[in-house]
Amino acid sequence: MSAGIPSALLMDGTAVARRIVEQAAADAAALKAQAGVTPCLATVLVGSDPASVTYVRMKQNRSAKAGIGSRHVELPETATTAELVATLTGLSQDPEVHGILLQHPVPPHIDERAAFEAIAPEKDVDGVTMHSFAAMAFGEPGFASATPGGILRLLDAYSVDLAGRHAVIVGRSPILGKPVGMLLLARDATVTYCHSKTADLAALTRRADILVAAVGRPRFLTGDAVKAGAVVIDAGYNPGNVGDVDFPSAAEKASLITPVPGGVGPMTIAVLLEQTVAAARWQVARG
Amino acid sequence: MSAGIPSALLMDGTAVARRIVEQAAADAAALKAQAGVTPCLATVLVGSDPASVTYVRMKQNRSAKAGIGSRHVELPETATTAELVATLTGLSQDPEVHGILLQHPVPPHIDERAAFEAIAPEKDVDGVTMHSFAAMAFGEPGFASATPGGILRLLDAYSVDLAGRHAVIVGRSPILGKPVGMLLLARDATVTYCHSKTADLAALTRRADILVAAVGRPRFLTGDAVKAGAVVIDAGYNPGNVGDVDFPSAAEKASLITPVPGGVGPMTIAVLLEQTVAAARWQVARG
Repeated sequence: MSAGIPSALLMDGTAVARRIVEQAAADAAALKAQAGVTPCLATVLVGSDPASVTYVRMKQNRSAKAGIGSRHVELPETATTAELVATLTGLSQDPEVHGILLQHPVPPHIDERAAFEAIAPEKDVDGVTMHSFAAMAFGEPGFASATPGGILRLLDAYSVDLAGRHAVIVGRSPILGKPVGMLLLARDATVTYCHSKTADLAALTRRADILVAAVGRPRFLTGDAVKAGAVVIDAGYNPGNVGDVDFPSAAEKASLITPVPGGVGPMTIAVLLEQTVAAARWQVARG
Repeated sequence: MSAGIPSALLMDGTAVARRIVEQAAADAAALKAQAGVTPCLATVLVGSDPASVTYVRMKQNRSAKAGIGSRHVELPETATTAELVATLTGLSQDPEVHGILLQHPVPPHIDERAAFEAIAPEKDVDGVTMHSFAAMAFGEPGFASATPGGILRLLDAYSVDLAGRHAVIVGRSPILGKPVGMLLLARDATVTYCHSKTADLAALTRRADILVAAVGRPRFLTGDAVKAGAVVIDAGYNPGNVGDVDFPSAAEKASLITPVPGGVGPMTIAVLLEQTVAAARWQVARG
């Protein structure tokens, strides 16, 4: 590392996530003791993509360890949009299910947006519905998209000032780039959305106090794209557990940086579980 | 005007709006001829703020000229959130009403968001609901917020390239700043949201190819804040018909600029009427 360049501190998502999950487990136990209700997360998987199967199992295992029940529904690869919508509508109406996760992406013949919208907003613990998105943008009650919510929790755990600072988001997907920008804007950051059509991307990313890589291209952002002292959040998860950031070169410039794995990934699941318990508490309180 | 500085061309919102309203009137007449249905816009006014009364009358007059029927509901200044919600719910369920406009702002004791959300998304021709916002952000079917939608129509009428260009929005309200940014992002602009907490605002606005002033402070953006050749959109409407942009100094820098009045204002009403007719056509087609 050269003289005068910040020595990046790792943002330990695994440790921060563990504390969130411990609190969620305690809250789940309290709900069980007080109301006799075990929070239940329904996971829905269409097809048998190996990565998706792994993710769903991981979420079920983590749920179980936190004292959260799970219900699992598998639909064949050939399921139609109508069948998936019917499944999600049924779970939305089922009083024993408190949170619903549709593992995505779904097979390309399915209308993913129609499927997401079949999830009742009060059970949308993965924060994928249009209602949840607008709630994040407007500061209204609702669930955060799990990864964006996890990124905000990680920034807070490291006491990163957001107000008035320039956050640059690279990527604009409905469940990652767009909502993380809205959450940062709601916290008074100045927010720039960049994407594949952006002219001179590096000129913009080099202005970022907080740089969020959410583009889905392995090692896409290198140290040249990072301002000295920036906080770098790598929300990428590419095959082989590789992020969207070239870690070695970016770490030479950043003041704080998330590793992959062990950065944003664990935060996503932690927020999913936390929001499942919150959903159960709210549904029990409402009666 | 100094040598070498662009001579700004005015963006004539009055003329562009007239063409949109003429088309809406033709579409309304066709619907009447084909299905016997006159599109109907319901306007709801709470209290008697003089500016709001004027705006509502203007919208009714323009509707009438375009062959769009109107229904007007006035509630007293003392109306409760529950009363306003009940009114809007009733109009949402009324098959003779195709579009609903709640004149805002509403008195401060009313929960404006709760009121907006009582408008059925398929009648939300002013684009104020959470559903409409997310639809704009995600490119899903839905109505645009009227002013942001009008701004996009005006940019298109002047063949402004958006893809890859940097749009800087000053302001982040739920019905103006936030949605106009989402519409520009959906059209492949790089989008930066600035606001009252932004550090060194002028450094950011001077990078804008397209600068949208939506801040609600008279003559807030001056020529120093404008890059030579930028397209400047003034969405401000402050007392005395004054925009958010200092027109003389900004016009010396801009390549295209909206006047106030006669820029964005007429576009807002045109989009409201166009969307009312579209709502009626859609509701008739659905049966």
